[in-house]
Amino acid sequence: MARRRLLLSLRWGDMDAYRHVNNVEVLRLLEEARVRAFGVAAPDGSASMLATGTVVAKHTVEYLLPLDYRPEPVAVDLWVGRTGGASFEVDYEIREPDDSRTYVRASTVCVSYDFDTGRPRRLADDERARLTALAG
Amino acid sequence: MARRRLLLSLRWGDMDAYRHVNNVEVLRLLEEARVRAFGVAAPDGSASMLATGTVVAKHTVEYLLPLDYRPEPVAVDLWVGRTGGASFEVDYEIREPDDSRTYVRASTVCVSYDFDTGRPRRLADDERARLTALAG
Amino acid sequence: MARRRLLLSLRWGDMDAYRHVNNVEVLRLLEEARVRAFGVAAPDGSASMLATGTVVAKHTVEYLLPLDYRPEPVAVDLWVGRTGGASFEVDYEIREPDDSRTYVRASTVCVSYDFDTGRPRRLADDERARLTALAG
Amino acid sequence: MARRRLLLSLRWGDMDAYRHVNNVEVLRLLEEARVRAFGVAAPDGSASMLATGTVVAKHTVEYLLPLDYRPEPVAVDLWVGRTGGASFEVDYEIREPDDSRTYVRASTVCVSYDFDTGRPRRLADDERARLTALAG
Repeated sequence: MARRRLLLSLRWGDMDAYRHVNNVEVLRLLEEARVRAFGVAAPDGSASMLATGTVVAKHTVEYLLPLDYRPEPVAVDLWVGRTGGASFEVDYEIREPDDSRTYVRASTVCVSYDFDTGRPRRLADDERARLTALAG
Repeated sequence: MARRRLLLSLRWGDMDAYRHVNNVEVLRLLEEARVRAFGVAAPDGSASMLATGTVVAKHTVEYLLPLDYRPEPVAVDLWVGRTGGASFEVDYEIREPDDSRTYVRASTVCVSYDFDTGRPRRLADDERARLTALAG
Repeated sequence: MARRRLLLSLRWGDMDAYRHVNNVEVLRLLEEARVRAFGVAAPDGSASMLATGTVVAKHTVEYLLPLDYRPEPVAVDLWVGRTGGASFEVDYEIREPDDSRTYVRASTVCVSYDFDTGRPRRLADDERARLTALAG
Repeated sequence: MARRRLLLSLRWGDMDAYRHVNNVEVLRLLEEARVRAFGVAAPDGSASMLATGTVVAKHTVEYLLPLDYRPEPVAVDLWVGRTGGASFEVDYEIREPDDSRTYVRASTVCVSYDFDTGRPRRLADDERARLTALAG
């Protein structure tokens, strides 16, 4: 079990006319969590995996409770689910940092991609190792 | 079969650093299609159903082909799937207006909601009628 | 006098928690107007001038009246002001298409830029000609 | 001299197709800085001044250096300039937290506003006191 917890800040502008964080902006938070978990913030400082070589194939997002803007960050817990030859699933929960509430439960299928050829590509061994380290 | 087709404009700013329309912004387009189909653009000019009385409970979005920015609009086809006592499903496809390509296939579960009490509420008869008119 | 008028659609998501079009999203509309006037929609079909070779150096934006979301487009009138060796000013007004109201008055200084060298570059003759055609 | 420094996180999605933080998203950061300085984060816990009672009348934004996405926050320094009967100016700089670079210099005219009557209103004494505490 290797969840990674990211503390991410909301922005006042994430709210919509209903005065809650807009459901679309929730996806922006999940994107930021993916980038920080897989990409620019990789602990070994290696080139970003997610930012340069994967595309989103599918999102499933469940909204459990309304999320209100506040200056304090929310917790995005993230882990890797099923991994295939050229794809992997990222699962997340957006929670209160004290775990008192779960606002969102979501899952993204990412496909490893070669932007030069414009085609999916097999996951490299080091990518697979990094994903295994985050397997749920 | 009662699909409704909306022609919606992209914005240059919908692109991300990969130079395609960002997967999160695709949800913004789907939101705009829902608002226009159910809400402010209701043919009978009645008060907006979607903008005042529903919340998003779940999104499922499949990205089939990359969508590039261009000044010409894309087509968002939208129809109503399963309808329950206090919820309904909106299904969509984002397509070339000439139907040559399907970029995105998606589905949203909307829950009818009373913002005064902060609780789900049963769909009213006129709401149900309007949904039936859009049933796929 | 060569104003160019663009009719641009608002999105429901452009509203913020005040239930008006957010002041930041107004800049998104101005960006879209610039791209369509100078770039991808160039009447001669030539490569985009704005999208590939200019950066924004300065914005000045005055908000005259609150702008509310509606499905009907707004008019963005755009013309070119002072032009220098490596820069030009774009002036705009966001108006009702029937000219009954002016919501926003704004001005952007764009600098022509060489992304390969990472430095400003002199405007080419054909760029200068295209700008002259839009001079206010 | 009473600048207030806020450390704000960028998001990967703030980048545009040029792979720098988009000029429009810079305004989103300035909005967040205003909200945190004047509003929800008010040290005395009082009701938000900015979020409930002011509107933006004018922005002036100068882009001095390109800002690139990174997981580390940027510093937004913010102070209050001229204050009138029903308005005040907020000045800002977006900087490296170590002060090695200034990316953006900006100024916003805020008008105190009564949303019930839809008209500007005079600044209250406690609002004026709070602004004086942030005077540059």
